[in-house]
Amino acid sequence: MKNTFGNNLCLTLFGESHGEYIGAVLDGLAPGIVIDDAYIKSQLSLRRPAGKISTARHEADEYRIVSGVFEGKTTGTPLTLLIPNTSQHSKDYSSTRALARPGHADYTAYAKYHGFEDYRGGGHFSGRVTAALVAAGAIVLSALKQKGIVIGTHIASCGGVADDPFTDPAKDIPSLNEKAFAVLNEEKGAEMRSAIEAAAADGDSVGGVLETAILGVPAGVGEPWFDTVEGVLSHALFSIPAIKGVQFGDAFNMVNGRGSDYNDIFYISDKKIKTATNHNGGVNGGITNGMPILFSCAVKPTPSIFKAQDTVDMFNKTDAVLKLKGRHDPAIIHRARVVVDSVAALAIADLLITRYGTDWLSV
Amino acid sequence: MKNTFGNNLCLTLFGESHGEYIGAVLDGLAPGIVIDDAYIKSQLSLRRPAGKISTARHEADEYRIVSGVFEGKTTGTPLTLLIPNTSQHSKDYSSTRALARPGHADYTAYAKYHGFEDYRGGGHFSGRVTAALVAAGAIVLSALKQKGIVIGTHIASCGGVADDPFTDPAKDIPSLNEKAFAVLNEEKGAEMRSAIEAAAADGDSVGGVLETAILGVPAGVGEPWFDTVEGVLSHALFSIPAIKGVQFGDAFNMVNGRGSDYNDIFYISDKKIKTATNHNGGVNGGITNGMPILFSCAVKPTPSIFKAQDTVDMFNKTDAVLKLKGRHDPAIIHRARVVVDSVAALAIADLLITRYGTDWLSV
Amino acid sequence: MKNTFGNNLCLTLFGESHGEYIGAVLDGLAPGIVIDDAYIKSQLSLRRPAGKISTARHEADEYRIVSGVFEGKTTGTPLTLLIPNTSQHSKDYSSTRALARPGHADYTAYAKYHGFEDYRGGGHFSGRVTAALVAAGAIVLSALKQKGIVIGTHIASCGGVADDPFTDPAKDIPSLNEKAFAVLNEEKGAEMRSAIEAAAADGDSVGGVLETAILGVPAGVGEPWFDTVEGVLSHALFSIPAIKGVQFGDAFNMVNGRGSDYNDIFYISDKKIKTATNHNGGVNGGITNGMPILFSCAVKPTPSIFKAQDTVDMFNKTDAVLKLKGRHDPAIIHRARVVVDSVAALAIADLLITRYGTDWLSV
Amino acid sequence: MKNTFGNNLCLTLFGESHGEYIGAVLDGLAPGIVIDDAYIKSQLSLRRPAGKISTARHEADEYRIVSGVFEGKTTGTPLTLLIPNTSQHSKDYSSTRALARPGHADYTAYAKYHGFEDYRGGGHFSGRVTAALVAAGAIVLSALKQKGIVIGTHIASCGGVADDPFTDPAKDIPSLNEKAFAVLNEEKGAEMRSAIEAAAADGDSVGGVLETAILGVPAGVGEPWFDTVEGVLSHALFSIPAIKGVQFGDAFNMVNGRGSDYNDIFYISDKKIKTATNHNGGVNGGITNGMPILFSCAVKPTPSIFKAQDTVDMFNKTDAVLKLKGRHDPAIIHRARVVVDSVAALAIADLLITRYGTDWLSV
Repeated sequence: MKNTFGNNLCLTLFGESHGEYIGAVLDGLAPGIVIDDAYIKSQLSLRRPAGKISTARHEADEYRIVSGVFEGKTTGTPLTLLIPNTSQHSKDYSSTRALARPGHADYTAYAKYHGFEDYRGGGHFSGRVTAALVAAGAIVLSALKQKGIVIGTHIASCGGVADDPFTDPAKDIPSLNEKAFAVLNEEKGAEMRSAIEAAAADGDSVGGVLETAILGVPAGVGEPWFDTVEGVLSHALFSIPAIKGVQFGDAFNMVNGRGSDYNDIFYISDKKIKTATNHNGGVNGGITNGMPILFSCAVKPTPSIFKAQDTVDMFNKTDAVLKLKGRHDPAIIHRARVVVDSVAALAIADLLITRYGTDWLSV
Repeated sequence: MKNTFGNNLCLTLFGESHGEYIGAVLDGLAPGIVIDDAYIKSQLSLRRPAGKISTARHEADEYRIVSGVFEGKTTGTPLTLLIPNTSQHSKDYSSTRALARPGHADYTAYAKYHGFEDYRGGGHFSGRVTAALVAAGAIVLSALKQKGIVIGTHIASCGGVADDPFTDPAKDIPSLNEKAFAVLNEEKGAEMRSAIEAAAADGDSVGGVLETAILGVPAGVGEPWFDTVEGVLSHALFSIPAIKGVQFGDAFNMVNGRGSDYNDIFYISDKKIKTATNHNGGVNGGITNGMPILFSCAVKPTPSIFKAQDTVDMFNKTDAVLKLKGRHDPAIIHRARVVVDSVAALAIADLLITRYGTDWLSV
Repeated sequence: MKNTFGNNLCLTLFGESHGEYIGAVLDGLAPGIVIDDAYIKSQLSLRRPAGKISTARHEADEYRIVSGVFEGKTTGTPLTLLIPNTSQHSKDYSSTRALARPGHADYTAYAKYHGFEDYRGGGHFSGRVTAALVAAGAIVLSALKQKGIVIGTHIASCGGVADDPFTDPAKDIPSLNEKAFAVLNEEKGAEMRSAIEAAAADGDSVGGVLETAILGVPAGVGEPWFDTVEGVLSHALFSIPAIKGVQFGDAFNMVNGRGSDYNDIFYISDKKIKTATNHNGGVNGGITNGMPILFSCAVKPTPSIFKAQDTVDMFNKTDAVLKLKGRHDPAIIHRARVVVDSVAALAIADLLITRYGTDWLSV
Repeated sequence: MKNTFGNNLCLTLFGESHGEYIGAVLDGLAPGIVIDDAYIKSQLSLRRPAGKISTARHEADEYRIVSGVFEGKTTGTPLTLLIPNTSQHSKDYSSTRALARPGHADYTAYAKYHGFEDYRGGGHFSGRVTAALVAAGAIVLSALKQKGIVIGTHIASCGGVADDPFTDPAKDIPSLNEKAFAVLNEEKGAEMRSAIEAAAADGDSVGGVLETAILGVPAGVGEPWFDTVEGVLSHALFSIPAIKGVQFGDAFNMVNGRGSDYNDIFYISDKKIKTATNHNGGVNGGITNGMPILFSCAVKPTPSIFKAQDTVDMFNKTDAVLKLKGRHDPAIIHRARVVVDSVAALAIADLLITRYGTDWLSV
């Protein structure tokens, strides 16, 4: 029952979709980190639903930091942030309480919590909880940026439409990170949005792939066994609702090739060791090699669809048919992208703090 | 620097490829688990190289259990096993000490350990360390089997050749787990071996995909955030050398479909809740739903190849050319398969012990 | 920077004395535990200052549970409680910001947090944070009681006055737990209060010893090395401000005796194994033996005194004289007692949940 | 079942008194630490029994380091050390298997491990396991010394005889650390040894108090809640067999005094902040203040005595009488002292590595 992540930088998430607050405690931050409210708000707005391709539930996400910040800077003690829930439509859920929504956690929550779970809107499993994750992540992202570490994610594919690959992540990311729909090729982005709208019109949903780059992490971070960079990042990433696969570099593409195709050759550039290609996603033997850390996440199609679905009544153990009402996202991939950046920031900062000590993030 | 995995069942791995021993400490095992030496030996033999498709280094893997077992059963205190290294050819490595092997951890180890690392044969990063993992895993696998939990893995693809998918894992696994080259379709297996031999003849290597099923885990295991089943399994799986991607169910296949294609419909069968399909790999919201847990691992082509490769001299920061000697695997996927089963056993047992208590595994 | 305690039942504390809220996240609670608001309030009132022997700062401690509870029962997801701070006199502190209060954490906080700490009222180090600990502890205490586990603490000595020892903790504790000033002998209690008042009249303070009994824990809980019952309890207990020593059973009394004096002889009573004496405090080899767990905590005299004290200006590195103003406790031992019970409940529940699984506390 | 200690420097202990090996895995050590075999041997010899005041079991403690060291220096990967058991008299134990030795862990082990435990010589609970702790501790102690951090312990009292207090620990410790019987006043030491011999002559045993100083730790190390310096040290110290109480500074002496007696006044000396007294043992609010860290451990009289004792037959649940045979220590305090130093080194190094990063110990 551990809803906490991290060894030396620890994030605890709490809250339910229809409770009073969702929130987070972030412990292990160095003292003296400037809280950039404009950036936190901007990140929250990128996660917030907007337009026809998202749920109609609108939350202002008016977060409050209630501990761990003094005079605009972190104190070094646990930072707690609260985000009130204001737009719950709880009655949308009570009539279908007993019916397990396919692809959702209703049944697994029931199996685990024996019916005591707050089922409304997915409760603690709701994607709503990622708002707290994004707010916490924003604090870490801005601190990492001061240390020369930059993270960015684009929608590599969505609804069957592929974006262009990163050309040079260092150049691509600054503008990418400003976009509400984060693609490198805007025409492809328009096609993706059309695909989402088409699915929405059918009462259906789409998924996609998010590709992320983390730049500026020095070589030598991570552990050989278990706390590998891949292991630590994937551990956290799989918490993001709808993410079902994580690969580093060209993993699932490399499986049909040969070693000579995919070994990343080293060379010297400006007295530094670099690799000519980056099929391994910046990680060898679980440890960073100084190249960009590259990974991709498979985002399954949103399970909330408006088509009638066969399912079961969990309490009576009978077959049933479910017709969802309420407000749902035909795609979450464009919203999930800042969540991925936030999780990546938390995980990589934890590895860096472990390596360089508790003051490192603000020095 | 944590080479330990698990919250309540903890595995610590130690040792270097050319040191005296590799080994493991397994702590958190219930007392009274019977040690099945024949099974441990059998699992080690499945990991051991054999024939033209593997390295010529041969190790007897004569493990010894030096603590935590008394009169053939676990005591409940830390179980330590040692496996001596007997067939090191250390001189194969000293001449090329300064040259970072592409795709290997030489450079990242140097960046992390500043040259103090035991570089011979990959040191602590060596796949050799997985022998200890397999021996420890075998103990857990046989205990899980007593509890009705069965794990099996097949080579879903290798060298561009695809195996048949699982038909019924419960029926497929018993014979699969006996095979030295674990495929469901032996003809495809023969093609894969040919592909490996062809790569070996070229001084090259191949990769592939391993698909795993875990059967018998009850619904309700795992945590909503961070210690999700996917997060915990992937964390451990990424430690296995050459694994660069992990997906649950049909993750990277689902990304181009719609929710209506991939939502696993629930139904009642014999008063139990089941899903008609298993695209989600037995996990919803991070928690088991009682269906088989299904995941796939991308195994990159083995980085040790005999072709000349450009690289760098790490000490002098100069470009160089590397021509590997020594004994290397043109493929490790057939050997990695019991490693994946072992890691899966350790991770899932940890989740189960957390849920049901420390005595559960032997009751 | 880990302000979290516990392996399977995890408490995270946050907040500063003069911030908006102090609070706690409690994760790992079984679902279905009834929240007994009257009991939580009662425990908070026992911690709250009252009368001449306590600080004049009065807080209503109107806690709110904002996650993890649904329809009056725990959901099994993280339970977050918030307690607003309403009676801060921050200006009492700003004039003496640079002066390290002797016996307090001002200087060590400055050394750790480089001046970014919220210094007002002790910030995150304030005993005020224990209100959140007590509210969280009350939830666990009432759940433990349902399982037959009872905890109680008396003021064994204060200001040089000794209370009677426990006669039979099972009989002593019910009435003891109702008392605002928890002594077994009321006459001695009156003497203690006089000693506190006398110290207060001198602008000074007193300390004492708290003795605690935990009843009903079965034999076989705890670990042989490191996670011993003594180790886990003491780890948590030393967080309580002013506690500087922890002993189990008759520890510091046994040091001058012989083994034959202090070995607790076993005997059979009603087919159960018991000990005739309990010098070891219910723990042998780090593991419970089924007898009451007994421990004592040394509470140093409150460091906030009104006498002029020599100290230093931390910023200018000069000697200085400090004359405290504000509102301070001449003794905290009577208030610390429910804090000790709360910490003991959290630590022992964590050990029990580790042993018996995540549902145990509510089954 | 976690026999592991530490967050960033992790020690795992394994082995049983009459097994093949006892040993330890130490993970998180920086690379490049020189292994000083002479010092490890010297520390082991100080722990080893000698003369009339100790058990007649003699072990050569011929440790072997089998991983994590290359060319005489740590590699940064897990360091495993093995110590063979060679002088077991297992038959001493089999005849009394069913009889729970008072003051020992026989019954609690049985309650926890259901009879599967290796009961011979106390099994995994045996003080013998501390040999591995001392060998691991010696590696850390010598690395800490290079960083200016020195640890020393004297027998503050034994058998009712008190040693002199530390005068100046920095001057006292170098010679103290060479002594087989570590007292500051040799006459008092002779009296203590006489008291031990007198107890031995009676078939009885004695206990005492160990006082430890840790010098050179900078201010600002430790956490405000839970991972306080006191909490982390005591957690580890209570693992040492026979330790039943831990106090910092003058804890149990302060309880009868007033704040004005025990507040440690700050002053400036050579532009540094110091305290005039050290009643708080170098820790305020859980965090180091730069003064010596001082703590005392209560060591109960050794429970192995030769007098007939009432006890129970655990299997038949009947009363019984036990007359111990075998080889036992009439006192262990003089041997426990290097164990305390070792544990202190491990715990404080963990806190320092957490604060300053993984390379700190060797830089």
